[in-house]
Amino acid sequence: MIVRPRPHLLELFFIIKGSIVLRIMPLLIFVATLSTVIVSIYTFKPGWLPKFDGGPFALLGITLSIFLAFRNNACYERWWEARKIWGEFVLTARSLARLSKVLESDKDVTQSPRRILLECNIAYAQALLVQLRPSNPQHKIHAYLPEAVFHEYSSSKNPAEAILRAMECVLIQALHSDRIDSIQFNMLDELLQKLAQVQASCERIQNTPIPFGYTLLLHRTAYTFCFLLPFCFANTLGWATPFVTALAAYTFFGLDALGNELEEPFAMGANALPISALADVIEIETKEALGDTDIPPLPVPKDFVLM
Amino acid sequence: MIVRPRPHLLELFFIIKGSIVLRIMPLLIFVATLSTVIVSIYTFKPGWLPKFDGGPFALLGITLSIFLAFRNNACYERWWEARKIWGEFVLTARSLARLSKVLESDKDVTQSPRRILLECNIAYAQALLVQLRPSNPQHKIHAYLPEAVFHEYSSSKNPAEAILRAMECVLIQALHSDRIDSIQFNMLDELLQKLAQVQASCERIQNTPIPFGYTLLLHRTAYTFCFLLPFCFANTLGWATPFVTALAAYTFFGLDALGNELEEPFAMGANALPISALADVIEIETKEALGDTDIPPLPVPKDFVLM
Amino acid sequence: MIVRPRPHLLELFFIIKGSIVLRIMPLLIFVATLSTVIVSIYTFKPGWLPKFDGGPFALLGITLSIFLAFRNNACYERWWEARKIWGEFVLTARSLARLSKVLESDKDVTQSPRRILLECNIAYAQALLVQLRPSNPQHKIHAYLPEAVFHEYSSSKNPAEAILRAMECVLIQALHSDRIDSIQFNMLDELLQKLAQVQASCERIQNTPIPFGYTLLLHRTAYTFCFLLPFCFANTLGWATPFVTALAAYTFFGLDALGNELEEPFAMGANALPISALADVIEIETKEALGDTDIPPLPVPKDFVLM
Amino acid sequence: MIVRPRPHLLELFFIIKGSIVLRIMPLLIFVATLSTVIVSIYTFKPGWLPKFDGGPFALLGITLSIFLAFRNNACYERWWEARKIWGEFVLTARSLARLSKVLESDKDVTQSPRRILLECNIAYAQALLVQLRPSNPQHKIHAYLPEAVFHEYSSSKNPAEAILRAMECVLIQALHSDRIDSIQFNMLDELLQKLAQVQASCERIQNTPIPFGYTLLLHRTAYTFCFLLPFCFANTLGWATPFVTALAAYTFFGLDALGNELEEPFAMGANALPISALADVIEIETKEALGDTDIPPLPVPKDFVLM
Amino acid sequence: MIVRPRPHLLELFFIIKGSIVLRIMPLLIFVATLSTVIVSIYTFKPGWLPKFDGGPFALLGITLSIFLAFRNNACYERWWEARKIWGEFVLTARSLARLSKVLESDKDVTQSPRRILLECNIAYAQALLVQLRPSNPQHKIHAYLPEAVFHEYSSSKNPAEAILRAMECVLIQALHSDRIDSIQFNMLDELLQKLAQVQASCERIQNTPIPFGYTLLLHRTAYTFCFLLPFCFANTLGWATPFVTALAAYTFFGLDALGNELEEPFAMGANALPISALADVIEIETKEALGDTDIPPLPVPKDFVLM
Repeated sequence: MIVRPRPHLLELFFIIKGSIVLRIMPLLIFVATLSTVIVSIYTFKPGWLPKFDGGPFALLGITLSIFLAFRNNACYERWWEARKIWGEFVLTARSLARLSKVLESDKDVTQSPRRILLECNIAYAQALLVQLRPSNPQHKIHAYLPEAVFHEYSSSKNPAEAILRAMECVLIQALHSDRIDSIQFNMLDELLQKLAQVQASCERIQNTPIPFGYTLLLHRTAYTFCFLLPFCFANTLGWATPFVTALAAYTFFGLDALGNELEEPFAMGANALPISALADVIEIETKEALGDTDIPPLPVPKDFVLM
Repeated sequence: MIVRPRPHLLELFFIIKGSIVLRIMPLLIFVATLSTVIVSIYTFKPGWLPKFDGGPFALLGITLSIFLAFRNNACYERWWEARKIWGEFVLTARSLARLSKVLESDKDVTQSPRRILLECNIAYAQALLVQLRPSNPQHKIHAYLPEAVFHEYSSSKNPAEAILRAMECVLIQALHSDRIDSIQFNMLDELLQKLAQVQASCERIQNTPIPFGYTLLLHRTAYTFCFLLPFCFANTLGWATPFVTALAAYTFFGLDALGNELEEPFAMGANALPISALADVIEIETKEALGDTDIPPLPVPKDFVLM
Repeated sequence: MIVRPRPHLLELFFIIKGSIVLRIMPLLIFVATLSTVIVSIYTFKPGWLPKFDGGPFALLGITLSIFLAFRNNACYERWWEARKIWGEFVLTARSLARLSKVLESDKDVTQSPRRILLECNIAYAQALLVQLRPSNPQHKIHAYLPEAVFHEYSSSKNPAEAILRAMECVLIQALHSDRIDSIQFNMLDELLQKLAQVQASCERIQNTPIPFGYTLLLHRTAYTFCFLLPFCFANTLGWATPFVTALAAYTFFGLDALGNELEEPFAMGANALPISALADVIEIETKEALGDTDIPPLPVPKDFVLM
Repeated sequence: MIVRPRPHLLELFFIIKGSIVLRIMPLLIFVATLSTVIVSIYTFKPGWLPKFDGGPFALLGITLSIFLAFRNNACYERWWEARKIWGEFVLTARSLARLSKVLESDKDVTQSPRRILLECNIAYAQALLVQLRPSNPQHKIHAYLPEAVFHEYSSSKNPAEAILRAMECVLIQALHSDRIDSIQFNMLDELLQKLAQVQASCERIQNTPIPFGYTLLLHRTAYTFCFLLPFCFANTLGWATPFVTALAAYTFFGLDALGNELEEPFAMGANALPISALADVIEIETKEALGDTDIPPLPVPKDFVLM
Repeated sequence: MIVRPRPHLLELFFIIKGSIVLRIMPLLIFVATLSTVIVSIYTFKPGWLPKFDGGPFALLGITLSIFLAFRNNACYERWWEARKIWGEFVLTARSLARLSKVLESDKDVTQSPRRILLECNIAYAQALLVQLRPSNPQHKIHAYLPEAVFHEYSSSKNPAEAILRAMECVLIQALHSDRIDSIQFNMLDELLQKLAQVQASCERIQNTPIPFGYTLLLHRTAYTFCFLLPFCFANTLGWATPFVTALAAYTFFGLDALGNELEEPFAMGANALPISALADVIEIETKEALGDTDIPPLPVPKDFVLM
């Protein structure tokens, strides 16, 4: 995620970070060059190319805008829902750290059930991170999980769920040993179910892209439209055509490319969500609630980007 | 569901899988041919056909775009809601597998209530699949259900619900035999209610299409509009008309056809949801939670399509 | 609700059922006739009528489209919410049938509390139907309600709620006679509250139409606009005007009329919701759960329409 | 709220009630007069005024439509949310009347806790009404509240909440005197929290208008646009200009004025919500549940308007 | 937030407060000046500058409008969600004040657990305020928190959460000392979780702006478009160009600037939310519920603005 103060007017035109201008530059250059060629032909070799009226293209352009807006909206909502899910994750981790105090009793030594539960939760956040960004390092998961749970984690077809199952066992044991009663078990279990919901929702967003047919149809129409634009603008705009078609192409390709980035909110693009930082926040706050003193610093953006 | 990496620019124009281009090809060819005929007449027999101005058609086209966008939006939201429902299903199955551990006691042999409950749940997922896709094979349902329950399943007017009723009986028996207390019964019953909600929501989406009047009105207007297009474009675009009208028809018919596919998210089209794969995931994860070792492999897409 | 397979291309233009074309036919004929008259005057008595440019009308038309889309969206969401509410109703009825098993005890004879509760629920569905469609027959309500409850039902200002109050009494009695404990009472009462919510939500949709001002404003603008269309199209379209204006009028009036139908999802129109069939489903499934054998057949569409 | 059957075609143009046409009439007359003056000048003093092309205005008009639609949508959603909140209110009042039966015991005389609770709830509905419509009469609040509670009500900074606090005291007393157990206390308290939510949600809608900047920007642009319209239409429409500009102004000003009415759903306009009638419904149904016989009649619309 | 009666027609054009006209004035002057220069050149030095047709720009303008509307919608929804969250906060504070009565017992002196809990909640509201508006004074936090809790608050990486942890301790102590049972503990803890949710939701909105790429793309396109407008309007509007381009620029820049303000609903702009006032309301109502008499006055808008 790009984190930076709102730029001033002139800066606005020279910011590269977070802009998708670099990614679509080849296309813009192609459109501008094509425009130049066509205007040259119209000017120096009139008659070589037929002249077109802009009307039909305007209709196509407005139609295209309406559907691009539809797709952008869908992508943005996925992105925002993904952010809500991780906000829910941070909230649940806090509630678990707070409420699990009922698990404590006076005679606990360091390996209290509460500590096991909360350290498993730190590992769970990291495990989810690995599921969403497979290149993420796994050493924290090993560090925070008890040996037996880590073994289960490694061999499971659904590693994150394996951690939750271990956390459930901690709760059931506490229930059976009368450390907590059924009501308190219910309260803590509800938090585990919310943690499980975070995983299920993330999976849904990661594994179910916008229907491929839409992407295909919109890409094709947008590209064809932008490559046709010079033919219908050259007529009325003359040598200004390359500039105006490049501007139009920037808008259409740019929104299309942004939609692509937001469609995958857990990827590593500049506009992706800072889920790595959020997992670190969960670690920091959980350790603080446990009374630990070796608390890592809060994550900071690097080069305006927080991952 | 189409599962494939985002294609590159040139690939983009030659992908067939997941595109609806094949399905609307006859229409595109018809529109292009009609355009060619009309341009020919305008060129070689001027006066045979009246010439029209594009203005009124542009108005019709924009109106049509706005309402097509409305319908596409409604269809996409149905599709996405269906995906959410099945995500909820997977989540509930996991929670049931996790939480049902409270049902276990030391003296259980293989046919513990937990095992009956969870195997019924695997069968429930398959039963829902059969309800949504009647051609689906039923052998797993037979395999996982106790004989008596399978009998009830086969004779019920609502087979899936019959399985849930059997699961409820397992819980009530556990309650009456003091294996669980009322609170724990409540927690487990809430999961059953969520399972029932999955069925009710799927039924709602499957049995209640977008009001037929909309489909009819939009189809009729879109077809008539695209068949009129050549008359108003031929005027200004000349021999480019067949290409541009085909492009416009591709956009309008394509979005219409995509809307049709998404309207039925449980059907067998390429853009339908992979509910078969999700039911398999439920089976795999439930068996793992039960400690079984004969776990089937995770489903993989075939020819870029996951069903 | 129209229930039929998606029609093929040619069928599409000749389907009457579910189309709103019959209802707006007089308007279409009027618009087409008006167009013919105006074109005749332009052709044979040039100068009698002033000629108008289409520009200002295009602006009006697009504005009108945007607001018609807004109203259609609002109407569709009411319709879909109504469907969700009845889906929730079916779900709650199933959950009540399933969960009420905890009410049963070994010494029950036929008039067990569970049977009273569930038969009241069947009557509740029919009572809601009568509230939403006053012409509906009431005999089932009498058949399923105990005499005393039917008396209360008949004299209440809120008949459906009177049934729910009777159901609550069954639960409270079961609680006081220790048939169920407080937790189970809570679980069953939550289902009653959901049943009450169904009624309140249906009332909201039935009694609160889209603000009358919108309907008025959009109707007036749409009618005036369509009656002006011939004046500005005649200019450029000549003898094609009657056809094109009728097509435009079909789109505008058609969407307006469809919005009207969806605005009242409980009415008796062809696009209304099949709430009668859903109430029957509740009866059938509840009777099956009670172990009754005289189960009526599932409702089927008549002439492609399910009410 | 306007309550009337859908009008027929001709009626449509002559209905005043619920239309905003009277409120914007001065503006329409101004626009039509301005148009007449401008057309006269163009006709009789050509050259006095420059002629403009409509193109730039069409762009402005479409932009304006898009943003008016955005604001109307926001206003409509506020209005509909307000209706949902009061629907929730009616539902909670019913549930409270139903569930509070558990408070009753055989030895109760008339001033049972249940009666106090429910009569407080009637007063609560009236108190909320006074908060939303300060001119509403307060006599019912005095009539239904016990003297001590009415005293607290009058002196509180949040009078409605003071009533809820009194209701909570009734519940806590019932809990401490073992009339209900903790579970039942929880169930009844949840209903109180829902009542409190109704107040908080109503406050939010009443106290937080659409951001003032939007209202200002849209009003200014809409007015300026409509006053400029004659200049660009006069060119092409001649003496039809006054009529067409008045029609366009009717659409733009009308939607703007309707948005204003819906923005304040608790005000006293013709399109406001009938919250007075709903509060009466709560009184009637609560009294019926208490077994009272002096039940007031259901509210009826006066002159097609239900307040 | 701007709090003022709806202005009359003439006032409308002269209100500055809450309008964003001052902030975009330099841009408007620039656009108007540019227009004047261009029209002068066209008039006095024809041929120096090429003339452009407006068609291509209209297409760009409509596309831009559609995407501006998309961004405004997203910003408005953030703003409205933020308001809902604080409404939920006020509601939860009231519920906590009401329900915490169960904590009281006859032998309590002033430092009852209920008082500690509620005063911590007042401090929590202030702490959240400081988190969202770092320049806010902190003296109230110190005043209401017990010394030990304030110490924890000051040294925590998540100060607001530290207060909630202290409140949880109060509840757990009350549970362990049998002042409340598990059910009542559950009820009160749910309110703490809702308080925590307020913080998490506010953090989400504050820390996650609309993706920077959108802001950049829309700003760039809007600016470039408005600077190009004079070139294509000058042609047809002549000396009216400066006025009309300034009006168009006012609409586009104004909506863009308003979107910016709403994107940060907790900032200090005139259209930001009055969270300071809402935190004061929480203090006032909590003190009243505690029976305190030194209640501060309700917050009032200063110069039409409530912060």
